[in-house]
Amino acid sequence: MKFEQPVSVTWIAEFIGAKLVGNQSQMATGLNEIHKVTNGDISFVDFEKYYSKCLNSAATVIIINKEVDCPEGKTLLVINDPFTAYVKLVKHFRPFEPSNKLISDSSLIGEDTIIQPGVFVGNHVRIGRNCIIHPNVTIYDHAVIGDNVIIHAGTVIGADAFYFKRRKDRAVQYDKLESCGRVIIEDDVEIGASCTIDKGVSGDTIIGQGTKLDNQIHIGHGAVIGKNCLFAAQVGIAGKAIIEDEVILWGQVGVNKDLVIGKGAVVYAQSGVPASLEGGKIYFGSPVEEAREKMKELNWIKRIPQLWDKVHRDSEEG
Amino acid sequence: MKFEQPVSVTWIAEFIGAKLVGNQSQMATGLNEIHKVTNGDISFVDFEKYYSKCLNSAATVIIINKEVDCPEGKTLLVINDPFTAYVKLVKHFRPFEPSNKLISDSSLIGEDTIIQPGVFVGNHVRIGRNCIIHPNVTIYDHAVIGDNVIIHAGTVIGADAFYFKRRKDRAVQYDKLESCGRVIIEDDVEIGASCTIDKGVSGDTIIGQGTKLDNQIHIGHGAVIGKNCLFAAQVGIAGKAIIEDEVILWGQVGVNKDLVIGKGAVVYAQSGVPASLEGGKIYFGSPVEEAREKMKELNWIKRIPQLWDKVHRDSEEG
Amino acid sequence: MKFEQPVSVTWIAEFIGAKLVGNQSQMATGLNEIHKVTNGDISFVDFEKYYSKCLNSAATVIIINKEVDCPEGKTLLVINDPFTAYVKLVKHFRPFEPSNKLISDSSLIGEDTIIQPGVFVGNHVRIGRNCIIHPNVTIYDHAVIGDNVIIHAGTVIGADAFYFKRRKDRAVQYDKLESCGRVIIEDDVEIGASCTIDKGVSGDTIIGQGTKLDNQIHIGHGAVIGKNCLFAAQVGIAGKAIIEDEVILWGQVGVNKDLVIGKGAVVYAQSGVPASLEGGKIYFGSPVEEAREKMKELNWIKRIPQLWDKVHRDSEEG
Repeated sequence: MKFEQPVSVTWIAEFIGAKLVGNQSQMATGLNEIHKVTNGDISFVDFEKYYSKCLNSAATVIIINKEVDCPEGKTLLVINDPFTAYVKLVKHFRPFEPSNKLISDSSLIGEDTIIQPGVFVGNHVRIGRNCIIHPNVTIYDHAVIGDNVIIHAGTVIGADAFYFKRRKDRAVQYDKLESCGRVIIEDDVEIGASCTIDKGVSGDTIIGQGTKLDNQIHIGHGAVIGKNCLFAAQVGIAGKAIIEDEVILWGQVGVNKDLVIGKGAVVYAQSGVPASLEGGKIYFGSPVEEAREKMKELNWIKRIPQLWDKVHRDSEEG
Repeated sequence: MKFEQPVSVTWIAEFIGAKLVGNQSQMATGLNEIHKVTNGDISFVDFEKYYSKCLNSAATVIIINKEVDCPEGKTLLVINDPFTAYVKLVKHFRPFEPSNKLISDSSLIGEDTIIQPGVFVGNHVRIGRNCIIHPNVTIYDHAVIGDNVIIHAGTVIGADAFYFKRRKDRAVQYDKLESCGRVIIEDDVEIGASCTIDKGVSGDTIIGQGTKLDNQIHIGHGAVIGKNCLFAAQVGIAGKAIIEDEVILWGQVGVNKDLVIGKGAVVYAQSGVPASLEGGKIYFGSPVEEAREKMKELNWIKRIPQLWDKVHRDSEEG
Repeated sequence: MKFEQPVSVTWIAEFIGAKLVGNQSQMATGLNEIHKVTNGDISFVDFEKYYSKCLNSAATVIIINKEVDCPEGKTLLVINDPFTAYVKLVKHFRPFEPSNKLISDSSLIGEDTIIQPGVFVGNHVRIGRNCIIHPNVTIYDHAVIGDNVIIHAGTVIGADAFYFKRRKDRAVQYDKLESCGRVIIEDDVEIGASCTIDKGVSGDTIIGQGTKLDNQIHIGHGAVIGKNCLFAAQVGIAGKAIIEDEVILWGQVGVNKDLVIGKGAVVYAQSGVPASLEGGKIYFGSPVEEAREKMKELNWIKRIPQLWDKVHRDSEEG
């Protein structure tokens, strides 16, 4: 997320109680996870093995749990628990704003858009023209929805990212990473009933133009779905997956986080995708393989009894 | 769907801009997809390979993209893009009617039926006697619900069919087939929480008497579920599947479109059903097989290492 | 469930029309299924093979379909159809109470708890302090929710148990076991969007302290989920499963009823768990095995063609 106006690093250091190292006159312009940072952003790192990645990223201000050499021009904010400091900043700059009515006054809804009864439209939501939002849909704060979008009943747009840090030594072990990202739904998208599309942790979850989702589909935080994709019912996509244009996923397919499914790939029903897939091919299985290889494999399995018989017969004969 | 009153083919030809061939004095009585047509219906065909099926079907009026010989007594409406013409007719005869209140004035709700708070009941919906509709359920326009039906919270009845025509040469590739079918829920059905049951494209999606659905079940457009079926949570049934009476599907089973599962079949959890299954048997696997065959197969797989060892030992000995 | 005050067995016998055998002056204090009974409870049994289990259980009053020897101090209520008698009692002592507003007057909501628009809070619900209940959530009657709990939009807490008795000789074959249990959500739990957590048949469905559920998760009746568990999206847990503390289930995992998953177990995505699993291990597959064994097995399958070739070559050479 980007701040409404730049914030001085000295104010941030004091707010979170960190030691300021490096550039003292820096102005931070946003907050981001390490894989999304752009120039001006504050990010955080709390594992030594990621230090170098974070220090060499575009992040301008780095909250870190050890005083290390500060890269030229950057600012380090050294503190014992960077995760908690980062969460404190998210809560400050993107506080939860309770609503007391179904359609927030700060939302913008375009001409010829129909909002059916029971729909919740949160604060700062923008919805384009000529959309239909069916009953009992929930649109969390800050979501951005394009033109000609149809969202079917019961769907939830923009619930929090499912992202926790484990603290094994505590009674309550999981600390929540508060999310400040958004959901962006481009023009001409149709989303079925009872889908859930989570907001990004700090960046945006995007559903590309012309993509059509059937019912009960889950899209995790920060996933980026391309244009003209077609997902059948009960598909689940984990956080930060990238699905390129024109991908077709049949029913109940599961897709792991942090991977890429290439343009035009087709994945058959109930398949599980653990890692990136090349585009333009057809896949099946859990874990997934190219469909024709998987089909051959299923046939090979059927020939084990025949093989067993032959081996034991040959052995006796031998 | 059937029209409220018959419509002349000359009016339809003019409305969609088609050339009228054959019977000029025909009155059309309804709109239907090719697999659901009855006498009096308008249907459409846009692939040469389906011409003969459509021309020889019960359809009385056929929207077609080539001037062919018109069967005796029928009417052809010749037009470049039959799909778009058909969608124009659906939108005309079954227009979307926005609602401004949760319970539509045109709905009919039977005696002793309890509608809990937050429920949306659309236009022209009929609900029988002695039902309980739990909070935040959405019932789209034209649904028909019998007596003694229980629908748990968050369930969505009658969202649009997930049915698109792809136009690869356009930026926005998928054209929506607007649906004009209904959902019919017979007496004594119980539907769990957060289920989605889509309307048929032109015919009806039916849940047979006495059938019980657990939570988070998806039933696709035009599926016909028999009487006294039992589906466990998270089952997904694709469009136009026919599930006969007394079928039991355990959790997370996926069923493909356009198939028949015979009476009394039982399908174990997480199975995937790609094609029709004979009734009265027990199935397991993805893709599904008879459960006892599948179990044997799982055992054969476990014997591969043993087989490998024997073959290599025999070979050395040999 | 426990009654608000003890009820005499003579009243119960008359109410359900049963013959009273044994202790006539007994006071019953609650209603329970056989696997949950405690001292003072009424339970029922209608299969001879379960007679001994029920008669020797903690149940004080037993509704039974045959006059057998009554254990010392207990009361038998002999009746032709114990199931129907038990259901009559449930309906009497835990009648369905329709609501006419979204937030019931008999609910108790703690300080600093935010209830967003469109949320239904049923009768006798208790919600602790500092919770956020997001829009369009449904909380059925009698649920108990702790402090610092977050429930995302569209989630349904406390729908009825999916539990039916089959009567094959009737036109409507499934008789519903009315449920009188509750859902209990302990402190510091977060539940994602569009989840469904059913109430117990007579006992409680419990989500343990600090557990985090992603979106579209189904938890069946009477399941007991431990503390600090992490379940990814679209997981389904069947009735009465016991998941111990710190268990991690990845996306789309399915878990059978009546089993135990031991502390700290990890189950990979799309796995199916048919029976109990030892804690502290990593599992994969449907049906599930230890992940490293399953991975080996997947490799063995890939070697079948090689084995086939060798056997046929050896055979020719032989």
